[in-house]
Amino acid sequence: MKTPRVDFLYLNEQDMIDAGVLDMHQCINEMTEVLKLLSSGDYVMGGKHDNSHGIVVSFPDEPEHEGMPKNGPDRRFCAMPAYLGGDYRVAGCKWYGSNLDNIPKELPRSILMMTLNDADTGAPMAYMSANLLSAWRTGAIPGVGVRYLAKPDSKVIGLLGAGSIGTSTAEAILDAAAKAEKVKIYDVYSPTAETLKQRIESEYPNLEVVIVDSQEEAVRNSDIVNLATSGEANPRIEKEWMKPGLLITASSSGNFDPNHTIENIRLIVDNWKMYEEVLDEDEYPYNNLAMGVLGRLFLDWIHEGRMTDEKIINIGDVINGKVQARKSEDDIIIFGLGGQPVYDVAWGYRIYQNALKKGIGTKLNLWERAYQAR
Amino acid sequence: MKTPRVDFLYLNEQDMIDAGVLDMHQCINEMTEVLKLLSSGDYVMGGKHDNSHGIVVSFPDEPEHEGMPKNGPDRRFCAMPAYLGGDYRVAGCKWYGSNLDNIPKELPRSILMMTLNDADTGAPMAYMSANLLSAWRTGAIPGVGVRYLAKPDSKVIGLLGAGSIGTSTAEAILDAAAKAEKVKIYDVYSPTAETLKQRIESEYPNLEVVIVDSQEEAVRNSDIVNLATSGEANPRIEKEWMKPGLLITASSSGNFDPNHTIENIRLIVDNWKMYEEVLDEDEYPYNNLAMGVLGRLFLDWIHEGRMTDEKIINIGDVINGKVQARKSEDDIIIFGLGGQPVYDVAWGYRIYQNALKKGIGTKLNLWERAYQAR
Repeated sequence: MKTPRVDFLYLNEQDMIDAGVLDMHQCINEMTEVLKLLSSGDYVMGGKHDNSHGIVVSFPDEPEHEGMPKNGPDRRFCAMPAYLGGDYRVAGCKWYGSNLDNIPKELPRSILMMTLNDADTGAPMAYMSANLLSAWRTGAIPGVGVRYLAKPDSKVIGLLGAGSIGTSTAEAILDAAAKAEKVKIYDVYSPTAETLKQRIESEYPNLEVVIVDSQEEAVRNSDIVNLATSGEANPRIEKEWMKPGLLITASSSGNFDPNHTIENIRLIVDNWKMYEEVLDEDEYPYNNLAMGVLGRLFLDWIHEGRMTDEKIINIGDVINGKVQARKSEDDIIIFGLGGQPVYDVAWGYRIYQNALKKGIGTKLNLWERAYQAR
Repeated sequence: MKTPRVDFLYLNEQDMIDAGVLDMHQCINEMTEVLKLLSSGDYVMGGKHDNSHGIVVSFPDEPEHEGMPKNGPDRRFCAMPAYLGGDYRVAGCKWYGSNLDNIPKELPRSILMMTLNDADTGAPMAYMSANLLSAWRTGAIPGVGVRYLAKPDSKVIGLLGAGSIGTSTAEAILDAAAKAEKVKIYDVYSPTAETLKQRIESEYPNLEVVIVDSQEEAVRNSDIVNLATSGEANPRIEKEWMKPGLLITASSSGNFDPNHTIENIRLIVDNWKMYEEVLDEDEYPYNNLAMGVLGRLFLDWIHEGRMTDEKIINIGDVINGKVQARKSEDDIIIFGLGGQPVYDVAWGYRIYQNALKKGIGTKLNLWERAYQAR
């Protein structure tokens, strides 16, 4: 950025794939770095306390104006900006629209784009398709969870939800769980479960992969359970189903008995400050169908006087060695994640660098010299 | 958006110019439409009450981490999303980085990009350079103010601040003030004032254009005064300088005597709900160096118990005929504007449509069929 001329790189979805966006092992490495930076504080997001997930445009349930979109499942637009430090030192913003009605149009539920920006000048460095970027970075976080929070000999994995995020998460968990022997898949929509089963079998021919008929079967006897269901599902997870030493990773919410959970389970999140920011952005109950994640459920429990935030551990503090995840081998852990723009900045920046090295993408010129440079 | 394939249009700064982004008369027409839609409520922005200006990433005054940007003049990133109804029916997000240190690099202080999205699918329709888009839509709003709030025989115009916004605003005011005879320009940096003088003289050879040495000279005897100064300037405007019937338009803040102003001046804004949203997003004093606009000054006056929001009029209500701007010919009006993403959506959409008609821009493919369409 030493000249008035500004160019940037456009990466469509195929470019992103060619540049390595589907490399889950590397993505888990990057997300580990991000979570360490979150623990040390070397980042800035938006909002009143610099920790916002992003800003949401949502539509009314009963629009008064002709043509105005009506609220519906997953219907929103969202902008997620962040600066990330460490070796990244770059800013960016993910911007997406989401609508369940996309599915019959053969479009993804959400269509996401990511901009990366020079942290000093603000000039765009890259504009990229962010569907796979988002799915992989979201999936990778439970992978970090398995690396740092699961018992090393975890053998049985239960997957609740086999959609886009459930699929990338399965990839991450299997990358991180070296001793895995068996995978159980539960999805309300059986063809989705079948697709994930075939995918895992083709990648891991030595694994036993089964589709199960109930949430209970998916959870019982599992060493690791992942929740990646839709907002409405909010699966009930009974305490009797949980094996000692179990790790539950969750990018969606779940229905847990509050008393048992607070008393007996270690509660770990990706960044508690992001959930605290929700207190300014939203109203109780914070955990709702539109935005269902465990961090928000924990906010509700605190709001209801059931516990204090002293129960909550940040995974970055575990990775950085500040806090121990487990006090005993049999401790059960719930690790809830909520998605943060710093993840997109990190993984986007890495893919952008790969693309530059490999000559992938379309170079676009913004201007030779800005019309108004004042 | 009837097929799984998604394409969108990229418009760089020259494309934007070729597609008409500098057509101020048309821009004032569009902004008039937007202000009417704001009055009727046919729009949604982000935030707790759907009226947020946007989400800001700002840096600490004393960063603890090596390499983290340090707070400075105009240093921030900002994402501004909105849906706009009416004949537009489109969503979008402006995303920019801003840093005064860009100037010696021959880059604009802010570098802005705009994405337009299908309101239903969320698919990107266009990605465009937004520097001129922003400057023109911001300038156009005082132009709307002159059309609807200035005395029809306004002859003398005073301009405080001749930078990027001051320049586009001058263009709008002169487009709207058909009877203008004289323009006075004041800027702390005299070459900037000279550039604007030459520009106005070449466009309007019959106008008398003078550079004045003080704020007082710019305001005294003027029928219309525009404030477009930097955040730090906050010019003091004495009540003795104000001619009866004066219209002050302001995209930046000003230092007005609260008692006199509240008692004697009509206070008009672009969208009071946007300023009310600031109550959740920021702390008192709301009008500060980082974000100085008159709507925030009015929030401070309400917070201090000096007045209530019953004093505040939305210009859209004036345009829609719900409210009268003036009670008497001699009433002085202050019209403060704060910038809103709905403006960017409207003007961006119009330029995008022009570009499509004229075959301007670079067509980019996102995907033939999304890798994950679930």
